[in-house]
Amino acid sequence: MGMFPAMADRCVIGVDLGGTKALAGAVGEDLAVHHRLQRPSQGLATGELLDVLAGMVREAVDAAPGEVAGVGFGVPGVLDRRTGIVAACPHLPLEGVRFEALMAERLGLPVAIDNDGNCAMLAEWRHGAARGADDALMVTVGTGIGGGIVAGGRLLRGATGGGAEIGHMVVELDGPPCEGRCPGRGHWEWYASGNAIGRAGAEAARSAPGSALAAEVAGGREITGALVTELAHHGDATAVDVLALVGRRLGQGFVSLVNVFNPERIVVAGGAVAAGDLLLGPAREVVAREAMPSLRDVVQIIPARFGSDAGLLGAATLAFEECVR
Amino acid sequence: MGMFPAMADRCVIGVDLGGTKALAGAVGEDLAVHHRLQRPSQGLATGELLDVLAGMVREAVDAAPGEVAGVGFGVPGVLDRRTGIVAACPHLPLEGVRFEALMAERLGLPVAIDNDGNCAMLAEWRHGAARGADDALMVTVGTGIGGGIVAGGRLLRGATGGGAEIGHMVVELDGPPCEGRCPGRGHWEWYASGNAIGRAGAEAARSAPGSALAAEVAGGREITGALVTELAHHGDATAVDVLALVGRRLGQGFVSLVNVFNPERIVVAGGAVAAGDLLLGPAREVVAREAMPSLRDVVQIIPARFGSDAGLLGAATLAFEECVR
Repeated sequence: MGMFPAMADRCVIGVDLGGTKALAGAVGEDLAVHHRLQRPSQGLATGELLDVLAGMVREAVDAAPGEVAGVGFGVPGVLDRRTGIVAACPHLPLEGVRFEALMAERLGLPVAIDNDGNCAMLAEWRHGAARGADDALMVTVGTGIGGGIVAGGRLLRGATGGGAEIGHMVVELDGPPCEGRCPGRGHWEWYASGNAIGRAGAEAARSAPGSALAAEVAGGREITGALVTELAHHGDATAVDVLALVGRRLGQGFVSLVNVFNPERIVVAGGAVAAGDLLLGPAREVVAREAMPSLRDVVQIIPARFGSDAGLLGAATLAFEECVR
Repeated sequence: MGMFPAMADRCVIGVDLGGTKALAGAVGEDLAVHHRLQRPSQGLATGELLDVLAGMVREAVDAAPGEVAGVGFGVPGVLDRRTGIVAACPHLPLEGVRFEALMAERLGLPVAIDNDGNCAMLAEWRHGAARGADDALMVTVGTGIGGGIVAGGRLLRGATGGGAEIGHMVVELDGPPCEGRCPGRGHWEWYASGNAIGRAGAEAARSAPGSALAAEVAGGREITGALVTELAHHGDATAVDVLALVGRRLGQGFVSLVNVFNPERIVVAGGAVAAGDLLLGPAREVVAREAMPSLRDVVQIIPARFGSDAGLLGAATLAFEECVR
């Protein structure tokens, strides 16, 4: 890559389709993003959403510095990769939509799609924090917990391409019902996501009236994961304790992943990365104490490299791997 | 296979090394077991155990109907397949032993080793209930819960060959400590193994004094998973309820596996298979209710084909795949 000047001109378009916004860019083989677009994705009907996405891709194609070989989409839902149909999509009206075929028809370009978690994993695996590891996991701690899995040197996709929903592991038998359209109970993301930090922060504010957290509640602010993280970084002991509690729960899920997958690396991404070692420190301690010794000794738990660009870069990497012959 | 008479004479030796006994046999490519041996494995020092195993293999080689191409061992522990060393072995004195190299030296034959759960999975995948599935899991419900995983058409082995310890997924945050040498807490096998059936049966006997279970306790019998299963088959409602409770907990673990792996089949093996639909029925109901709809719709939960022979046949299959050129 990059040895022949002519090759560097080859581009793909990567699209990271999220529940509130879509990001797109023309991406070169050196992973440079040549043109970057963002549009709201929320509140649109199916046809409107597809129009917006097609418009974004066309604009990126026009601005690309070279020939565009294909388009990769990271979609926030469960995909059936055999058919290119979106099987489930909690935040966007894409359930049952022949997404891959419809976008290929509209764009006249080869299209590849995958789950957004798989795309982010692909970017980190090929070019980021999981590079060189044949067995690695990506855990994206945001509103919920998403993820991607590399096992034996390949992305784990499951029978129909819907796998790696690691946020939906049961960590509490008969626990509270999942949010969104998942019919499960007691899932990891209820206890260890960014939303979980917010929930635990609101509880802590009630039981610690003298804390900075309680002062924020008194001032009318909503306790979110981001706010807890901010207060913890400013030294509020209650906020630090909240991150430690959620970090331990994050670590308990890591224990399952270490025991089942025996990975070399667990790459942590998402908004929760801002909490840094206040969250990951307690998580690592749980893994050191509770995972099987011969498995925990080979695993590193580290932050992702690409941050909020992982989805876009992963969708582009997918396009390079699946659309470029 | 089997087209050329000369080929049918080719054999391997399969050894299923368990915590209490070792099984060995000369196995043909048609999976027929030509000579079958069993020896106690418990209470031996490392050297004695290796001697016993070498003796069993030599006897099987002598009795084999054709040339022996190699030897496969299923070992009940965490293996480092890069080095052939046993990394952890709760029930036998093999921790740190260069098992593969030592057996190859003693026997003068090619040797392949894998975790016993992986061996059983291999047998069911190549020749049994998981045949033809590129994504499948085997869940062995016995004293604990063991397993094997096929993902994307390959056995999942992890970074050092120690993966697929699915019995050691956390299903209860801060739950009771694991038995044996696992330092974890709240693991699935605590709630859904054969031992768990026995524990839940003993509790139920205390709270239902009129039950057949309570009568057995009064008669001095220990409540085991096998006894609960026997009484349930004879119609004792309390025993039926115990299997249903443990079946639901088994199902909650299946939910995690379905959401993470998106398998086509989950093959259930081990002593708990004797409980049949009294255990698997409630487990299937939980999956139908709580797993992600698009994933649960493609998965079948079915009993294994090979029963107690799966380990031996899987070790033989391993030898055919790794020792035969």
